[in-house]
Amino acid sequence: MKILLVGATGSIGEVVYEELKNDAEIIQASRNSSEYPIDITSEESIKALFEKVGEVDAIICAAGSAHFATVDELTPEQNMIAVNSKQLGQVNLVLIGLHYLKDHGSITLTTGVLMDDPLKTASSSAMANGGVSAFVKSAAIEMPRGIRINHVSPSMLEKSKEKYGKLFQGFQPVSSERIGLAYRKSVFGAQTGQAYNVY
Amino acid sequence: MKILLVGATGSIGEVVYEELKNDAEIIQASRNSSEYPIDITSEESIKALFEKVGEVDAIICAAGSAHFATVDELTPEQNMIAVNSKQLGQVNLVLIGLHYLKDHGSITLTTGVLMDDPLKTASSSAMANGGVSAFVKSAAIEMPRGIRINHVSPSMLEKSKEKYGKLFQGFQPVSSERIGLAYRKSVFGAQTGQAYNVY
Repeated sequence: MKILLVGATGSIGEVVYEELKNDAEIIQASRNSSEYPIDITSEESIKALFEKVGEVDAIICAAGSAHFATVDELTPEQNMIAVNSKQLGQVNLVLIGLHYLKDHGSITLTTGVLMDDPLKTASSSAMANGGVSAFVKSAAIEMPRGIRINHVSPSMLEKSKEKYGKLFQGFQPVSSERIGLAYRKSVFGAQTGQAYNVY
Repeated sequence: MKILLVGATGSIGEVVYEELKNDAEIIQASRNSSEYPIDITSEESIKALFEKVGEVDAIICAAGSAHFATVDELTPEQNMIAVNSKQLGQVNLVLIGLHYLKDHGSITLTTGVLMDDPLKTASSSAMANGGVSAFVKSAAIEMPRGIRINHVSPSMLEKSKEKYGKLFQGFQPVSSERIGLAYRKSVFGAQTGQAYNVY
């Protein structure tokens, strides 16, 4: 099995790689990769990566950023960071990558707990993740060639507690193991259209 | 009470106007209005409308379009129609309009049943509405000056059954009265961060 992992060097991407590395050939793509560079905000960059990689059995995206600001300070321009990255970066990876997926392949996107359990300053991120979540649910019913699509919605990782704990007051940190298992279920299971919430 | 109704001439906008016209002064804005024209895909157009209208007690948006195509045919460009209109049009109306709302004012956006109960060809529309839904839930907890924000998610209107019934197989059409009441609850009630699903 050949898996394209986009955002391989991020905190979630590292967890996914560790979980799946013994069971598949994993192509580790990321913004700063010298071998498999990708900027998910650029359709051309997405296409160039797939042209280089060719057909795969699974696509996993753990990439995407957002601007954090209170809603009375957030500008339409700042909001575009999440739109172009977290939301359209992931959706375009589906629209383009679909044509490079083998029959019965799978796509796993990444959303996040803040769309369900909001925090101040996170409405732009929540919006992008809510968009991805609804897209997955809808696209799943019409995926061609037996292709499946799910998303994993992680809460704050235990390993990120020092960095983000002050922002995520009252959130139960989740283990890397639980996060990794959700991606494993999406790739190796048979479900589609699911939100794997790891809260 | 002064209400700005964006998308006043659409099928939902007409219902909202009929429901609320006897209880408030309603400014009927729409793309083709000669007095209050607005193109929600343009920040400049949104700003120009608010500069003309001035302060209001409530903003209701019943505008927004999307491209319908199966997910294996949908292009990133076609997907931008829903992003720019249904999603960012409504979100930008909040980000800009917030500063023209009186204290304890309200904002009511419009999503739709397809984000919860998907149909083929509707993943772009579902995505945009899912984004708006998550944005509303998140923004509600940090709205300034007692301002509230909700969204109404209508299913197919009874009056639209002839036009859309073949697409919405098995969906229970909903009365204009029930749709109107949801907007009334959002404007005259005290709740915030709610999804009023009229299914």
